[in-house]
Amino acid sequence: MNHASDNQWLSKINWSDTGLVAVIVQDIHSGVVLMMAWMNREALARTLETGEAVYWSRSRKKLWHKGEQSGHIQKVHEIRLDCDGDAVLIKVEQEGGIACHTGRRDCFFLRLEDHQWVATEPVLKDPAEIYHA
Amino acid sequence: MNHASDNQWLSKINWSDTGLVAVIVQDIHSGVVLMMAWMNREALARTLETGEAVYWSRSRKKLWHKGEQSGHIQKVHEIRLDCDGDAVLIKVEQEGGIACHTGRRDCFFLRLEDHQWVATEPVLKDPAEIYHA
Repeated sequence: MNHASDNQWLSKINWSDTGLVAVIVQDIHSGVVLMMAWMNREALARTLETGEAVYWSRSRKKLWHKGEQSGHIQKVHEIRLDCDGDAVLIKVEQEGGIACHTGRRDCFFLRLEDHQWVATEPVLKDPAEIYHA
Repeated sequence: MNHASDNQWLSKINWSDTGLVAVIVQDIHSGVVLMMAWMNREALARTLETGEAVYWSRSRKKLWHKGEQSGHIQKVHEIRLDCDGDAVLIKVEQEGGIACHTGRRDCFFLRLEDHQWVATEPVLKDPAEIYHA
């Protein structure tokens, strides 16, 4: 980001009142929707610069380089914006094949069946192992 | 929804301060992410009841049965919730093969290339034709 003009693409985004945009994360190979997260301006700029997904953690109120603890980095191959500019879609290569902090491939593992949310996907790695100190 | 207990699944969702949840809409056949929208409790309940996607329009501040004007109904085959309960993924069959109000297959047609958003997908039908009175 050497030139001011380089930031014009960031200004095309309809940032929320709190300065965030919703980000859908899709596996570039399988097409599986891995997770949804949020980015602020800085997170999106860093994602582009580094080629690795950086989010804004709403709970921890700080930038979050996905995989910094778990090693489950997301290499970003493509960044897309929707028609009204308030949702971003990124296509990523998921290191380790695990996007979810529960140790599953993706975060959308609860499927609605007969008015109940049923966990459908196997835990590939024990979270205690993923997040060892 | 005949029984109070039937609504427990709705209470598992971490509704936002404004009573909404983000909804990612994926084509069940191709895996393409078609759009992102928002639902409130009633929209999600109606979606389940009717089998067709009903959203909450934040701009018009009312329920929005997708396709009511355009005919581009979304038949819902699967409803999923993520690990922290604040994002829903629905897998749909898209009537007419057009999800976007611009007449494109999906809403994520702007791809970031060299710090510019470039429209990448063809307009399949003129919006003037889609939204004729």
